[in-house]
Amino acid sequence: MRIGVDIGGTKVSCALVGENKTILSKVSFDTGGGRPYTDVLHDVANSVYSVLDQTGYRLDDVEAIGLGCPGILDQQKGEVIYSNNIAWENVPLVKTLQKYVPKEIYVDNDANCAALGEYLCGASQGTSSSITVTLGTGVGGGIILGGSIHSGFNSAANAIGHMVIVSGGMPCTCGRKGCWESYASITALVRMAEEMAEQFPDSLLAEVKKRSGPFNGKNIFNAARQNDPAALKLLDKYYYFVSEGIIDLINVFQPQMIVIGGGISSEGDYLLLPIIANVKKGVYCKQVPLPQITIAKLNNDAGIIGAAYLKGYQATAVNPGI
Amino acid sequence: MRIGVDIGGTKVSCALVGENKTILSKVSFDTGGGRPYTDVLHDVANSVYSVLDQTGYRLDDVEAIGLGCPGILDQQKGEVIYSNNIAWENVPLVKTLQKYVPKEIYVDNDANCAALGEYLCGASQGTSSSITVTLGTGVGGGIILGGSIHSGFNSAANAIGHMVIVSGGMPCTCGRKGCWESYASITALVRMAEEMAEQFPDSLLAEVKKRSGPFNGKNIFNAARQNDPAALKLLDKYYYFVSEGIIDLINVFQPQMIVIGGGISSEGDYLLLPIIANVKKGVYCKQVPLPQITIAKLNNDAGIIGAAYLKGYQATAVNPGI
Repeated sequence: MRIGVDIGGTKVSCALVGENKTILSKVSFDTGGGRPYTDVLHDVANSVYSVLDQTGYRLDDVEAIGLGCPGILDQQKGEVIYSNNIAWENVPLVKTLQKYVPKEIYVDNDANCAALGEYLCGASQGTSSSITVTLGTGVGGGIILGGSIHSGFNSAANAIGHMVIVSGGMPCTCGRKGCWESYASITALVRMAEEMAEQFPDSLLAEVKKRSGPFNGKNIFNAARQNDPAALKLLDKYYYFVSEGIIDLINVFQPQMIVIGGGISSEGDYLLLPIIANVKKGVYCKQVPLPQITIAKLNNDAGIIGAAYLKGYQATAVNPGI
Repeated sequence: MRIGVDIGGTKVSCALVGENKTILSKVSFDTGGGRPYTDVLHDVANSVYSVLDQTGYRLDDVEAIGLGCPGILDQQKGEVIYSNNIAWENVPLVKTLQKYVPKEIYVDNDANCAALGEYLCGASQGTSSSITVTLGTGVGGGIILGGSIHSGFNSAANAIGHMVIVSGGMPCTCGRKGCWESYASITALVRMAEEMAEQFPDSLLAEVKKRSGPFNGKNIFNAARQNDPAALKLLDKYYYFVSEGIIDLINVFQPQMIVIGGGISSEGDYLLLPIIANVKKGVYCKQVPLPQITIAKLNNDAGIIGAAYLKGYQATAVNPGI
């Protein structure tokens, strides 16, 4: 069995994952923004022993531990190079955690871990290549090629949200203008909903805003499902932008499958079918079958399960030993 | 030794390539637009025997033959699925050529072959991953990952010119609007030069157009090298668009190297250095070293040498036998 840890901006989750890739026990704690990384990793170590205690297993029963973390990670050194979300720079994750947990420890970007989780036991199981696109606060991605995470030279691949699709367009947090993330994230959907509600003050969309507070993915989709013309128009626009990036990924990579994850992926076919229709029309090569486009299956557990299985699934991984 | 064939829209070149990847003999003929594919392949067969005759070798001395061809190819079936340039659809390349040349024959997209050539004995030799970007009539690309051509599922990867960078922008031949190709190809540079010459009728750029006929890469660059403000402004704009796509490729793939090929790559550092400066400012992850960006080394021979070495360098290749 293995242990997977998902370090997020607000929450850290740690789970013991059994041989059949099911979660046997799980604990979570608040990341606590601004705490020294040593404190956070000390809590991670306690979580590791907690998930073992809960099930009666010992550290010796564990084959490897994996940590997923937002940002750019050096898989070979086991370090966070830079993470905007947790405000970490040059943090020696593996070295620090190994002081408390003498075990093989692997690290990778959280979106890569989620993509690996989906590949191992979720939507993209059995595919030769897949890209998992996470539509959330930003647009994240993980690329699985030939059964391994594609991290690229310098470990810095998979910033798929930072392809420019509208050159000179909306300013992005990365400094460029017009990144896919600025048009296809939930943040972007909410921004466009604000504009649409203002433009159509008599719409259900405008009413939703007044009645139920700020927009989020859920209340926007609910308005559309009630056939509010403003909400439908908004989603058309949103689907267009989501599709633009997916078409780009297909034209360049041609993966066997694109998996759509993130909060709004729970909208299922309502989200998926219009996107597939757009992509079908837009791809460069219409003479070969369209890569499969589907919804993620594992939700939040994808990242934990992927992290647990980093050992053996990183193309460039070097076992850092203990 | 091996034989490489580069089938282009206007010309077909065939060469015998020695063990040290040098060209021992070479012949070319006009493709002859609109001819039946069987005629073209019959001429390819004659070329194969010509390059052997010229050097005194026999077909038995040849390990494998490779064909590079524009368009989408099915490497496993040895077929052209669709090639816009030569107006071929579902052409059984391998099966047809093997009637005349009973040998192992491999096929791939011409830009993939060029990328492989640069990897084997040109600019990207020894890299773990590289993308060769060809700035020509269109924008082509070949992706080498872990020493093999990345063809993607369905063999349709590497349409890197068809990433949208200006959503809703200039119409592209592929049907989308705003593809990178519509801003970064020589065709796009010439289009922008026409506009710039009209806007600045007293510029050297406008004079060049009057004096030396239609624009091409060379006369535009010459005007800029003479510090014509209009030409310099034009190239600034062109470099910006070229850089936008290169940044996208780096953010998504993070290859060890980006190789810039195509006619204007002969401009060398004059072209390269401003692009590198733009890319440096634009990439998502500034905490890791920038992938190397360099100029292609082999020019037109890259495609032939790459084609000759397809055997063993296609990730999904199946030996079609004879």
